[in-house]
Amino acid sequence: MKNCIFCKIINGEIPCNKIYEDKEFLVFLDAFPAVKGQTLVIPKEHYDYIIDSSEEKYTKLMLLSKKVAQAIGKSLKPFRTGILIEGLQVAHAHVKIYPMTRFGIKECMKQLEPKPSEQEMIEIANKIRGQI
Amino acid sequence: MKNCIFCKIINGEIPCNKIYEDKEFLVFLDAFPAVKGQTLVIPKEHYDYIIDSSEEKYTKLMLLSKKVAQAIGKSLKPFRTGILIEGLQVAHAHVKIYPMTRFGIKECMKQLEPKPSEQEMIEIANKIRGQI
Repeated sequence: MKNCIFCKIINGEIPCNKIYEDKEFLVFLDAFPAVKGQTLVIPKEHYDYIIDSSEEKYTKLMLLSKKVAQAIGKSLKPFRTGILIEGLQVAHAHVKIYPMTRFGIKECMKQLEPKPSEQEMIEIANKIRGQI
Repeated sequence: MKNCIFCKIINGEIPCNKIYEDKEFLVFLDAFPAVKGQTLVIPKEHYDYIIDSSEEKYTKLMLLSKKVAQAIGKSLKPFRTGILIEGLQVAHAHVKIYPMTRFGIKECMKQLEPKPSEQEMIEIANKIRGQI
């Protein structure tokens, strides 16, 4: 969809730190992470509200999110990995995957660390990709 | 499992504001909500880390969570409904469903309003139950 930042990432108009891609989905590092390794799982089809999507679409998206969460667990070795469906900010369905400390997502969201460098983002994406 | 607060709720040893129950799952209001209508979806079987559960268990849990999120949307009419897999605090698998403002779960977590009264909790549970 025109003017959708995620559609532009899917089409290659905007670059991303890609982790995984298939016909239906794209997985990449969140460019504005609250915590290092924060990852987005998005469908290539443009739709907005995940909660109202079909059971089939939702299940595929959530099963891929589980795989990505496991890959983050193996590669970055956080205390745990969290999955968040919130769907705000960008009006294109997206699931956020958080490598968490023992204090959870709330605490992660407080970590306003400086944004990782591009080199660090590439290394993080490579690590996660290696476990998918 | 002994000493698990969620197992005690499942067994009826500790009361809850029940929204839905079947052979495999229990859905009830979080007794310590950050936002009114915050709901927990839990499997009756005691296991801990959702991310490492089987695809079948995970899919059932997430599809029920979607239904509950939709019921919260219809009954409480939040801006949107969020789904969070974090799995901390209690070592029994649980999905948290959040009625959200337009500022999302992070903002919800800041709302340290006084706990709703028992009467209000009963009314909220009734409303959500009516849409499942």
